[in-house]
Amino acid sequence: MLEKTTRVNFLFDFYQSLLTPKQRSYMELYFLEDYSLGEISETFDVSRQAVYDNIRRTEMMLEEYENKLLLYDKFSKRQKLLDEMEQSLEERDPLKRYVDQLRELE
Amino acid sequence: MLEKTTRVNFLFDFYQSLLTPKQRSYMELYFLEDYSLGEISETFDVSRQAVYDNIRRTEMMLEEYENKLLLYDKFSKRQKLLDEMEQSLEERDPLKRYVDQLRELE
Repeated sequence: MLEKTTRVNFLFDFYQSLLTPKQRSYMELYFLEDYSLGEISETFDVSRQAVYDNIRRTEMMLEEYENKLLLYDKFSKRQKLLDEMEQSLEERDPLKRYVDQLRELE
Repeated sequence: MLEKTTRVNFLFDFYQSLLTPKQRSYMELYFLEDYSLGEISETFDVSRQAVYDNIRRTEMMLEEYENKLLLYDKFSKRQKLLDEMEQSLEERDPLKRYVDQLRELE
């Protein structure tokens, strides 16, 4: 079975522009819209196996792109640093927290 | 003639992992090592026109990748923000500038 992980979702987010329209459609339906393989195969009138193989191959392509470009890896590292920086900013100036909280109530 | 611009250098930097080894070699020699088309054609024992066409096509591929992934565009925007942030930090705490200057003298 194909795993519906956060990682695949992120990789799809970063590299979907490099996929073919068919690959993109299958991936969107399976990972974002939570269609089953059977539902996708009915929608496109192809075999369930063909859908499975296509998605499997696309996942491998996404991992290959990630190996080469490291967009998800760098994104995660930047997010972590930004979180830490935000935390430090709040500690330095506690007022910021109140502004954020007031904003969230709007 | 092919223009040896900063833009091509940056695009090559971001997307070289997606090129073939041959494309990478020609681009490196032409843009980083500043070889002429004639020197590359002698090195690889192919026609000058073949080298020119290959580099021209590679440049177009790099622009296509940039259209799809916007890595250079986002990098430039992040650099600009980081520069501004660094400037603000220095204004907030002038001591930082002295530390930087002392570091540069080492």
